[in-house]
Amino acid sequence: MKSVRVFAPASIANLGCGFDIMGLALDEVGDVLDMSISEGDGLSITNESGVPLPDDIEKNVITPVVRKFLELTGNKAQVNVVIKQKIYPGSGIGSSSASSAAAAFGMNELYGSPLSEEEVVVCAMEGENLASGGYHADNAAPAVMGGIVLIRGYEPLDIIKLPVPGDFYCAVVHPQLVVSTKEARSILPKNVPMHDAITQWGNVGGLVAGLYSGNIGLVGRAMKDAIAEPYRKGFIPGFDDLREKILSKGSLAMNIAGSGPSVFALANKRDIAHKAGDIFDEHFSSLGIDHQVYVVKVSNRGARLIAY
Amino acid sequence: MKSVRVFAPASIANLGCGFDIMGLALDEVGDVLDMSISEGDGLSITNESGVPLPDDIEKNVITPVVRKFLELTGNKAQVNVVIKQKIYPGSGIGSSSASSAAAAFGMNELYGSPLSEEEVVVCAMEGENLASGGYHADNAAPAVMGGIVLIRGYEPLDIIKLPVPGDFYCAVVHPQLVVSTKEARSILPKNVPMHDAITQWGNVGGLVAGLYSGNIGLVGRAMKDAIAEPYRKGFIPGFDDLREKILSKGSLAMNIAGSGPSVFALANKRDIAHKAGDIFDEHFSSLGIDHQVYVVKVSNRGARLIAY
Repeated sequence: MKSVRVFAPASIANLGCGFDIMGLALDEVGDVLDMSISEGDGLSITNESGVPLPDDIEKNVITPVVRKFLELTGNKAQVNVVIKQKIYPGSGIGSSSASSAAAAFGMNELYGSPLSEEEVVVCAMEGENLASGGYHADNAAPAVMGGIVLIRGYEPLDIIKLPVPGDFYCAVVHPQLVVSTKEARSILPKNVPMHDAITQWGNVGGLVAGLYSGNIGLVGRAMKDAIAEPYRKGFIPGFDDLREKILSKGSLAMNIAGSGPSVFALANKRDIAHKAGDIFDEHFSSLGIDHQVYVVKVSNRGARLIAY
Repeated sequence: MKSVRVFAPASIANLGCGFDIMGLALDEVGDVLDMSISEGDGLSITNESGVPLPDDIEKNVITPVVRKFLELTGNKAQVNVVIKQKIYPGSGIGSSSASSAAAAFGMNELYGSPLSEEEVVVCAMEGENLASGGYHADNAAPAVMGGIVLIRGYEPLDIIKLPVPGDFYCAVVHPQLVVSTKEARSILPKNVPMHDAITQWGNVGGLVAGLYSGNIGLVGRAMKDAIAEPYRKGFIPGFDDLREKILSKGSLAMNIAGSGPSVFALANKRDIAHKAGDIFDEHFSSLGIDHQVYVVKVSNRGARLIAY
């Protein structure tokens, strides 16, 4: 029997303009799995995280990830997974991706890294497909690779790790509003106005340029979403007022995290991010909506082995 | 009386994925204007270029550019412009932008540079508006500033000069097919499928990342247009076959230049660009379509004073 303990970080997808193609990894927050392989052919998943998850392993994102890894590498084994730590599902900071990335990375470690980092992402995307009905990599790629990641294209998968200039901090609020990823996707139009699409790709170019050139002001100006936000912000009470407050206190940008309902603010100073966290807290408290706030550094580290 | 001789380069807009937001400046090819100001209030434009242009100055792109400059700076003068050298209109390499950029830059020089480079672009955009009925900067900005330029947004105008890694060469072919910019714009749909829009902004991010990181392969992979090309390539006989040939001989990408009908290939070696030029020549010769081919270096230099 061989065993590993793996961690994969929480992540935030879309980053405003980068709908479906960009995401970043967060420090500290994430999932921890103990994984082992032994002779045989089967999979067991035990949940020791304290976070309620379905008992049926067919409903756990780890299952298709493990199967994809075994299929790609032509291996067969009894795989045992113990979930030690879990981000709450639906928190909008890549809960399913953290599990998927940890499982894919862990399998690759157990077998001596036969897969490239990109192939590990491909395995992790199987979990995303189970969770949301689509092969997205905008959370899975940063959860595997760390940092800020661009998915240049899906056919074939082309993942670019972008530089993280200096220190970035995210304040994230997870309000207890029930919005499934599927629902958040289904309200989006199938077609978008050309004018808005052009605005969006101008901003994507600007965001990438800002990250490479270390132009923080440009990063902030570019992190705007002309496509999904107009539809999705309706799920989040007081969204526009909240952003006005957040930006007035120095954050670079505020956007919906992934498909929501979580919202994040990006700042280049820790104290500004904490201020944003306080504003998030006040906002949802005043509305009587339960919520959690995280203030976390953007991390260049993705999935990794950790000590038992 | 004060006078200057100014040059502004030809340019290629869109660069595949960067529809309406990206463009690059070409070396050597461009417009030359002799401009002077003296006391009075009027504008004369004399065409000594040998290229046929309308006599009515209200139909010349230089006119609204000069007027915009005078309006922005609060000046009044008798302005005399002599067009010494002119890219053929409709060539698809930014003929109207070269005149507009030269006129805007020249006025700014005559008055001791009261306007910023970005404001000079704003003046040049008045010429674009006359030529094509829209305030576009994807030719005007590179014609003023040189290099490869991203228009992050128009409201407000936010122009980012991107790095040009190493040497890039363009082969450009201008086939004698009559396609006006207005016509080329009008066949585009008002709405675009979400899937194609996502593909496009993934590529824009990839192109910008490729330019900053000097990843030439990424530049080539990203220079694809999911939005305008499917509609516009119908104007260009044998477009898909032509691209297959061009790419098989080492060019990084082949796309429609601006709104067409010119086509350009980008290469990172001069001899590959010349090979692309030869393929362009053979292609349109075999179809019996008159054409001109240019093989030119991508230039970091934009509008500038030149010697008399």
